Amino acid sequence: MASTATLGLAAIAEGQSPPTGCVTAREPFASAGLPAFADLVVGGHDISAVTMTKRAECLVETGMIGPRLLAATHDALERADAEVRPGYDPRTAHLQDGQEPESQQAVAERLAADIASFQERHELARVVVVDLSSTEPPVDPVPEHDDVDALLGALADPARAVLPASSVSAYAAILAGAAYAAFTPSAGMNLPALTRLARDRGIPVAGQDGKTGQTWLRTVLAPAFAARGLKVLSWAGTNLLGGGDGATLADPDAVRSKLASKNRGLTALTGSDTTPLHIDNVPDLGDTKVAWDHVHVEGFLGSRLTLQTTWSAHDSMLAAPLVLDLARLLALAHAAGISGPVPELGFFFKDPWGSDVHDAAEQARAVEEWVLGASAQVGR
Amino acid sequence: MASTATLGLAAIAEGQSPPTGCVTAREPFASAGLPAFADLVVGGHDISAVTMTKRAECLVETGMIGPRLLAATHDALERADAEVRPGYDPRTAHLQDGQEPESQQAVAERLAADIASFQERHELARVVVVDLSSTEPPVDPVPEHDDVDALLGALADPARAVLPASSVSAYAAILAGAAYAAFTPSAGMNLPALTRLARDRGIPVAGQDGKTGQTWLRTVLAPAFAARGLKVLSWAGTNLLGGGDGATLADPDAVRSKLASKNRGLTALTGSDTTPLHIDNVPDLGDTKVAWDHVHVEGFLGSRLTLQTTWSAHDSMLAAPLVLDLARLLALAHAAGISGPVPELGFFFKDPWGSDVHDAAEQARAVEEWVLGASAQVGR
Amino acid sequence: MASTATLGLAAIAEGQSPPTGCVTAREPFASAGLPAFADLVVGGHDISAVTMTKRAECLVETGMIGPRLLAATHDALERADAEVRPGYDPRTAHLQDGQEPESQQAVAERLAADIASFQERHELARVVVVDLSSTEPPVDPVPEHDDVDALLGALADPARAVLPASSVSAYAAILAGAAYAAFTPSAGMNLPALTRLARDRGIPVAGQDGKTGQTWLRTVLAPAFAARGLKVLSWAGTNLLGGGDGATLADPDAVRSKLASKNRGLTALTGSDTTPLHIDNVPDLGDTKVAWDHVHVEGFLGSRLTLQTTWSAHDSMLAAPLVLDLARLLALAHAAGISGPVPELGFFFKDPWGSDVHDAAEQARAVEEWVLGASAQVGR
Amino acid sequence: MASTATLGLAAIAEGQSPPTGCVTAREPFASAGLPAFADLVVGGHDISAVTMTKRAECLVETGMIGPRLLAATHDALERADAEVRPGYDPRTAHLQDGQEPESQQAVAERLAADIASFQERHELARVVVVDLSSTEPPVDPVPEHDDVDALLGALADPARAVLPASSVSAYAAILAGAAYAAFTPSAGMNLPALTRLARDRGIPVAGQDGKTGQTWLRTVLAPAFAARGLKVLSWAGTNLLGGGDGATLADPDAVRSKLASKNRGLTALTGSDTTPLHIDNVPDLGDTKVAWDHVHVEGFLGSRLTLQTTWSAHDSMLAAPLVLDLARLLALAHAAGISGPVPELGFFFKDPWGSDVHDAAEQARAVEEWVLGASAQVGR
Repeated sequence: MASTATLGLAAIAEGQSPPTGCVTAREPFASAGLPAFADLVVGGHDISAVTMTKRAECLVETGMIGPRLLAATHDALERADAEVRPGYDPRTAHLQDGQEPESQQAVAERLAADIASFQERHELARVVVVDLSSTEPPVDPVPEHDDVDALLGALADPARAVLPASSVSAYAAILAGAAYAAFTPSAGMNLPALTRLARDRGIPVAGQDGKTGQTWLRTVLAPAFAARGLKVLSWAGTNLLGGGDGATLADPDAVRSKLASKNRGLTALTGSDTTPLHIDNVPDLGDTKVAWDHVHVEGFLGSRLTLQTTWSAHDSMLAAPLVLDLARLLALAHAAGISGPVPELGFFFKDPWGSDVHDAAEQARAVEEWVLGASAQVGR
Repeated sequence: MASTATLGLAAIAEGQSPPTGCVTAREPFASAGLPAFADLVVGGHDISAVTMTKRAECLVETGMIGPRLLAATHDALERADAEVRPGYDPRTAHLQDGQEPESQQAVAERLAADIASFQERHELARVVVVDLSSTEPPVDPVPEHDDVDALLGALADPARAVLPASSVSAYAAILAGAAYAAFTPSAGMNLPALTRLARDRGIPVAGQDGKTGQTWLRTVLAPAFAARGLKVLSWAGTNLLGGGDGATLADPDAVRSKLASKNRGLTALTGSDTTPLHIDNVPDLGDTKVAWDHVHVEGFLGSRLTLQTTWSAHDSMLAAPLVLDLARLLALAHAAGISGPVPELGFFFKDPWGSDVHDAAEQARAVEEWVLGASAQVGR
Repeated sequence: MASTATLGLAAIAEGQSPPTGCVTAREPFASAGLPAFADLVVGGHDISAVTMTKRAECLVETGMIGPRLLAATHDALERADAEVRPGYDPRTAHLQDGQEPESQQAVAERLAADIASFQERHELARVVVVDLSSTEPPVDPVPEHDDVDALLGALADPARAVLPASSVSAYAAILAGAAYAAFTPSAGMNLPALTRLARDRGIPVAGQDGKTGQTWLRTVLAPAFAARGLKVLSWAGTNLLGGGDGATLADPDAVRSKLASKNRGLTALTGSDTTPLHIDNVPDLGDTKVAWDHVHVEGFLGSRLTLQTTWSAHDSMLAAPLVLDLARLLALAHAAGISGPVPELGFFFKDPWGSDVHDAAEQARAVEEWVLGASAQVGR
Repeated sequence: MASTATLGLAAIAEGQSPPTGCVTAREPFASAGLPAFADLVVGGHDISAVTMTKRAECLVETGMIGPRLLAATHDALERADAEVRPGYDPRTAHLQDGQEPESQQAVAERLAADIASFQERHELARVVVVDLSSTEPPVDPVPEHDDVDALLGALADPARAVLPASSVSAYAAILAGAAYAAFTPSAGMNLPALTRLARDRGIPVAGQDGKTGQTWLRTVLAPAFAARGLKVLSWAGTNLLGGGDGATLADPDAVRSKLASKNRGLTALTGSDTTPLHIDNVPDLGDTKVAWDHVHVEGFLGSRLTLQTTWSAHDSMLAAPLVLDLARLLALAHAAGISGPVPELGFFFKDPWGSDVHDAAEQARAVEEWVLGASAQVGR
């Protein structure tokens, strides 16, 4: 998805493609003084050796983007690849022979130094870190996750690995003073101690788990049924997907995080807990995700109505523009001096931090009002 | 649908059934001081000789309602049937032998007298007329439709029939000082001269064409795509229905009104005019309406996504609770001294009078705010 | 389902309802000299205390059948209920206090005696036993299942319970000389030793697991793709159902039998093993089963096509007529002196005994040819 | 579609692509001694100036085929383009200034000469003409269509144009001694006088209107319902398509031919005439055709079941392999000395000539048996 976002940013910045699918390209965002697409610079951390340039070439092979678009954005992709540094992979971190084990504090400082160097070299006003890595299994809670001092102590101990990889990266963003968005259901910044640290150090953060397709659709439809006084009895769903995500989510552990995250909003909106949901790995679908929902609703005099939806989309094409949106919006939040979770960015997430609003229309209104307010504050 | 609404009102009033599907049963409407369900009295005009009691018995045969519910509401249906008076049928109005042709003014006065008598006998604070009759073909415009004085002159002329039946009934509502809602796409009150008359005489009116199923769903989904910055390329739909509506709409003339009305909001919301739409008469489906939509959307970098929806519902079960809602809300409007079209009631209609808002979520917000304001005004 | 079959048989026998959904009501079966619907007499074994009459009353409450049909078949249901004897429930068999443990041989002899008495009292030419009980978990194989003598020895030992309940009933059918059909995926007759016994004792048997809805549809479609030279890449499915079956299949053990049985034919027909399949318990759907399938197919030059199917039906209404068909066809098989598995009855089953043909069209042809042959043999 | 078939043939012949979607690539066809794919040579008549090479380039732009496949087949496409001669366009035939009007006999002879020259230059054993041109409106019958002598007389008269273009081409095939297949619903060979001529002159012909997608699916499903004794009450369908076909079929006249052809088999198979069907031009879908069907079925005891199917495919990718199949199979028919309509090729057509069988499974069996027989005859 990083490669799609990077390629797309270049295409938009260079006028090769309109910013379709970007929320911030429409009003009132377009006039709100957000950083221009062309002013964004891409870098990152990655544990894979496959470059974004290489991944983009695959997108051409599978017909997702045309050869012309690849050619037009090739240089931008290579520039971004040159700004990618090795990420933190706990599975391999301790395996280098003859080496002293490194503390997670040291790892985070290394990652933070990469961010600082990136910011300096490009003379950027600020950096926004967006977690786009593969979904981790749910994390087992330990007391250190709830207590800043205990956490900092544990991080310094080379013998301990108290944080999952996504949270080490989140901590690194804090150390580097970078805004942060969690686009996956992994723990990331979503541990009480890290959230507190972010707030204390003036870092705006937003999360969690990008609301791109089926879940977004559900949070559009469920409030609409409620507005009509109709009662959702059950909401059953199936997701078919291939690609890397399909394989990751074929792992029952990883899928648990995802399923929980997907159902939370639905139950909140409908009051029904008959919401069976499946994610199936169907490799032949590639990056296409097909989602079927069956909604069973009670109406007047106990009558029944059903709505079925079938959604078919390239998953990364839905997610990538939202990643660009979050970069622009968190840059504004940072400029406006907002710290800690930004509940008004809940529009973008399955599990909105700092908010229990899941209704997509209400979230759209909230983020529109927010951008005007934050923008005015920066303008002052 | 009148029989379903009447039966349902009785079931709700007597606690046999919860008011599921009624918008006004939820907050903030429930606490807004609307007339109680139990305080509503049903009467009407009809050109058919089939009573609501009889129609309700058919609902049992087809399994739509249970025999217990029919038994519990049987008396209420008979009471309502006793309050039904002959409506105006232009096809038969002039055919009674030996009789002088009657002017449309005289017809309207007779209908208005029925309303006044009904109100008096039941000691009602006010009456709300809701047009639930079969869809008429589009009306050919004549100058009298635009000019109050010319219209009144023409109405008095027994040789002319310048108004369609639905508009004669609307005019009768004005004469009787009754609030009015147009639940069908027929002309009804929707002629400039009649709308002016309604406003002048302090009558609140709302229309037009109940937004119950597929169209409602479209006005939920289309704004959501826009909020995401996604571009709808085409929106194709098919409706299958049997029952009386299926047969009526098998008439190409009647269906023209309906199709135009159904597509207007969609084009406004999406900007696309590739919106082929069909209504097919499938008698074996009875009152069930099945609607399939295929939405083709452009996303990031020219990628495509599709959403298909299949909606299956008993049409009258969707419409009936909204009819009860409109009766309650227009009673409030009348009490609050509001006259002419009430744009905030656009939530209920495919073609909202006095408003160009089609977005269902925005409409829901508007009517919620309106009920609080109108309610406060009455309370003062 | 037994109650639906019994009620339906009465309705057909008494001319209240046409035999729609019965395969044997069409040609060439209709003229093949099968026992008439009116000549069938219903009895059975059940471990539940709820009568078929009672269950049929529930069908009226939920709108599945009309009150008139219930009234017309009420007596027939009561007559059938009077012929139901207690079945074998291993969970309670040994719990009667003070009582000696009973051997499974003794249980089977008791059940067989019930069958013999039923046949005698009604002067029936033959009896067909159809297993309609709830799905059991997969059975753990033991050596006795493969060896007739070892099995008979174990059955006689009161300390052992070597057969699941469904297989004790199947053994009882053998003892009683009754033909047998396995409409569920439970083990039933499908153990090598029992199948051998059935063959040795001249009993025709057929199974297994009624092919009623989604699986039937798949075995219609999959061969059609193959006939076109198209290559199925994946076939993903979801089943939603409530009712008793929904609850039974919410048990992960029971569902395992079912899923295996449902997928076997599909993999055989398509060559693809990407066939994720789910069964979800959605209680609010009652007896309605909704099944969604997504078929991803490779065509010319690597192009892709998709077919989605949504199937919605009352499960017992699909199964019941096939039960009547099997009773009639196995009666013919018995009369024709056929013993052991009848492969030509594979049309009716997800897991056809004695055949690896799953193609529904080919199966239809086979059973049509078979009925003519068997019928001719009896007629000689 | 001609370009897809030509490109595909080259890809298969050169081993670049497997013959997926070709019926004749599977058994028993594969071993039946049909002409090899690599032995087929492509030429044709066209009234458009756009070459197949050019059209194939567009397929790459829209992502339907990869750039590699185009490169690999480019030369073959150019070779085929070099064999395309101007077709007969009645709209322009008489417009060349100063020129004598040409009789349709003269036109047909010119076309036949093109075919003969093509056959000679490539030393081909035989030629098969397949009509792939745009659908014509239904033809108004004239007496000459039923009488060979009258037709031949009229054709010779320069003042008359008694045949539609498709039939002039069919007549040309007869003159050239070429086998003929009608892949469109246009009149073509389907006039009694032409059919008689074909038979008299030893020409095997097959038609009509390729059964590629939705109609094929219907002829798979409808017989399956019948085999189960289930009664189809209604079968409603909608087709969405863009591309050239979408535009052609947006013409109400052309669509009439198509709709009639599509519904004939369905009514024959189900006995229901509630089969509303629409074809909508949705340009943004390009060559993708999306078809939705809603089947309403009566089952046991008057219960209802519904099946919905959604089919999405590249239309030309479905049709092209069948065109190659027909070329191979008609070459065999020609070699076997079969003349006139070949009913066993009904598998390939919506409106099978010489047969009233629409059941796809039965048709598949018939063509399998036929190929073995014809093949044996040739081998003798």
